[in-house]
Amino acid sequence: MAGYRWDRANDPGAGVPLAVVRATSTADVQSAVRFAARHELAVVPRGAGTGLSGGASALSGCLVVSVERMRAVEIDPATRIAVVEPGALNTEVKAAAAEHGLWYPPDPSSYEICSIGGNVATNAGGLCCVKYGVTSDYVLGMTVVLADGTAVELGGPRLKDAAGLSLTKLFVGSEGTLGIITRVLLRLVPAQRPPCTLVATFASLDDATRTVLDLTRTMRPAMLELMDRTSINAVEDVTMMGLDRTAEAMLVVQSDEPATHGVAEIAEVTAICQANHSTEVFSTDDAETGEAFVVARRMVIPSLERQGSLLLEDVGVPVPQLGALVRGIEAIAEEHVITVAVVAHAGDGNTHPLIVFDASDPDESARAQAAYGQIMDLAIGLGGTITGEHGVGRLKKDWLPAYLGPEAMDLNRRVKAALDPQGILNPGAVF
Amino acid sequence: MAGYRWDRANDPGAGVPLAVVRATSTADVQSAVRFAARHELAVVPRGAGTGLSGGASALSGCLVVSVERMRAVEIDPATRIAVVEPGALNTEVKAAAAEHGLWYPPDPSSYEICSIGGNVATNAGGLCCVKYGVTSDYVLGMTVVLADGTAVELGGPRLKDAAGLSLTKLFVGSEGTLGIITRVLLRLVPAQRPPCTLVATFASLDDATRTVLDLTRTMRPAMLELMDRTSINAVEDVTMMGLDRTAEAMLVVQSDEPATHGVAEIAEVTAICQANHSTEVFSTDDAETGEAFVVARRMVIPSLERQGSLLLEDVGVPVPQLGALVRGIEAIAEEHVITVAVVAHAGDGNTHPLIVFDASDPDESARAQAAYGQIMDLAIGLGGTITGEHGVGRLKKDWLPAYLGPEAMDLNRRVKAALDPQGILNPGAVF
Repeated sequence: MAGYRWDRANDPGAGVPLAVVRATSTADVQSAVRFAARHELAVVPRGAGTGLSGGASALSGCLVVSVERMRAVEIDPATRIAVVEPGALNTEVKAAAAEHGLWYPPDPSSYEICSIGGNVATNAGGLCCVKYGVTSDYVLGMTVVLADGTAVELGGPRLKDAAGLSLTKLFVGSEGTLGIITRVLLRLVPAQRPPCTLVATFASLDDATRTVLDLTRTMRPAMLELMDRTSINAVEDVTMMGLDRTAEAMLVVQSDEPATHGVAEIAEVTAICQANHSTEVFSTDDAETGEAFVVARRMVIPSLERQGSLLLEDVGVPVPQLGALVRGIEAIAEEHVITVAVVAHAGDGNTHPLIVFDASDPDESARAQAAYGQIMDLAIGLGGTITGEHGVGRLKKDWLPAYLGPEAMDLNRRVKAALDPQGILNPGAVF
Repeated sequence: MAGYRWDRANDPGAGVPLAVVRATSTADVQSAVRFAARHELAVVPRGAGTGLSGGASALSGCLVVSVERMRAVEIDPATRIAVVEPGALNTEVKAAAAEHGLWYPPDPSSYEICSIGGNVATNAGGLCCVKYGVTSDYVLGMTVVLADGTAVELGGPRLKDAAGLSLTKLFVGSEGTLGIITRVLLRLVPAQRPPCTLVATFASLDDATRTVLDLTRTMRPAMLELMDRTSINAVEDVTMMGLDRTAEAMLVVQSDEPATHGVAEIAEVTAICQANHSTEVFSTDDAETGEAFVVARRMVIPSLERQGSLLLEDVGVPVPQLGALVRGIEAIAEEHVITVAVVAHAGDGNTHPLIVFDASDPDESARAQAAYGQIMDLAIGLGGTITGEHGVGRLKKDWLPAYLGPEAMDLNRRVKAALDPQGILNPGAVF
């Protein structure tokens, strides 16, 4: 049972489940939920357990319903959809689509280990979202098991469907609080063109955030990521790939425009970086060389995990507020004498402040928790959200009412109550 | 009051409202809804009145809440969003965005006369959706007045937001049954590149639908429209632009890939058309010449309206079923001895069978109604939807249960009941 208590958020409040159901079919999930409903047991749905907000933390005495064994992926190239069981990993869907020259864009940093069910449940984002949108934009339909064990089919293999309420979209991002998704229909698009990649370093963080704004005003890169000095150094410690340890910020930008247009777009990016006092700009139209820099970006979380325990934020703001957010986070880190690395999907204003702390030090842990909350308060104050792509889970739920306001919070509760009147689905997450 | 009884669906069952509220603010809408709730009056929300499923037909004794006077459009170019009041026309949003080099993609054929509020309420589609998605993909947030008069803010100017349930998306396409939208935040993208356009005619409809499938398997055009012979002739009657009256089908295709890549993509389209026995293919990289053919496509409904009354369908199927759908519609038209023109957003399997009839002839009207229903039954049988982009409204609601099935229908009703327990919001539409 121990392996099913925590997700990657390491929720200190996780309990010991009564039992774990390792479902192999929709019918299995239905049986489990019906049993739970009859006995008024809490049900915690679980995919690959890579969630970062504690949405899959077990509760004492709960039934964990794991879909890790439901992994089938079928591609229909004529209709350009994937029919996927929720335990399939994001990378498995990408690979199956690629066999038909197709592409499933959403790419959380954890795409090699996270499941599609979890992606849909949290409306996961990623690096290419700045151009290609989030998980919700690719979900055309699903099978979902409701709180009374009924299985419902929503949507279908059609790019347009205006019949009835948009319930497919409602279940995306519902974090297991409205139902358990047992099958997903995903929209695929033609394979991405090999990208051109640019890496630029900046002595000043403000110059880097100004560059982001200048870029998003005029173009639509396929990736626009920012790493701050702490992130750069953590990655350099592990990879020794020669990143500039003195830089306050580094941008990683990709263009997937066709051939010469990609090169031209990257040339424009270069000019904008230079106009904003970049210290070094390197670009390549070789996809493999470019991928090395993207790997550097993806290494931020694993590299920081070596330095201590992590509290992972994913606060987002309107893009023009990015600079104020990053500087505000810096001030919070100083105030609490704690390390906060920032890595950001900068192009869509979605940041990952990563709070590094020693979990065995109660004082430092308390300071980390205080910083965690203050960063969300800061984001709300800047017109931002407490979570851009990880979900509220159990770790962020105390901030949800302040973010949504009483009217929207009440509306959330009414929908929840209508669909799960017993309150057995993932209690304590989101609500 | 007469001007507020019907939308463009000319619902024969439309009643006479008790009163029309021409709201100028969210507060006006709140007052109207509170009054209605107190007196248990039905409220029918109304935008520009261009709906094609009767979602804005008045009910006897209802309060029509028109938002036609709420037309403000503000563009925030740094955040790349439009903040729009619901009465603003789609074309006004496009124009305001264009002043900043930005683009609001969704483009219903009626974009010059339809309102954003209606677009959001029906999750409207259009011609560019095959590449750029539907209205829902562009709605980041909204203000919505609930059934008790409460105004709620949902979402906001952030590209990613995973905090709480996806209620913004739930209200998109809810056809005024869950609340009245009084303000919308729309995502904008950089201006579209000038497109290359291709027009191809086919002696055989089957060749044309096969071409559509061959195209969507390998590329992602920015537009992929089909007109059948009846549509071609109706437009030619009005425009005399020299369309081939003998062709069974015509395709209009656009590529907005950059410069030479657009030309290359259109060359590929040409080859695929020719491989499928097109009788004539014409292409141009001159945007204005291309636009003339798009206008021909947009003229289908206005041209057919001159021939009689119209019942407008918008059934959609998975793209591989397009040929079977179009041939099936032909058989239904023959069986009922009635004219059914077909024009289709072929690339996403969304068709518009347009039933032309003489409304003063009761027998022909009855045959038109029978065909209308059978076409929806046919679409359902082919794994399709009864409405791809117009909404269910009052005209299609009898088919909704058969399409959704009892479980999904029940789920729709539970959400409706949770949000509008008195049932005062647009009763008789959808449900």
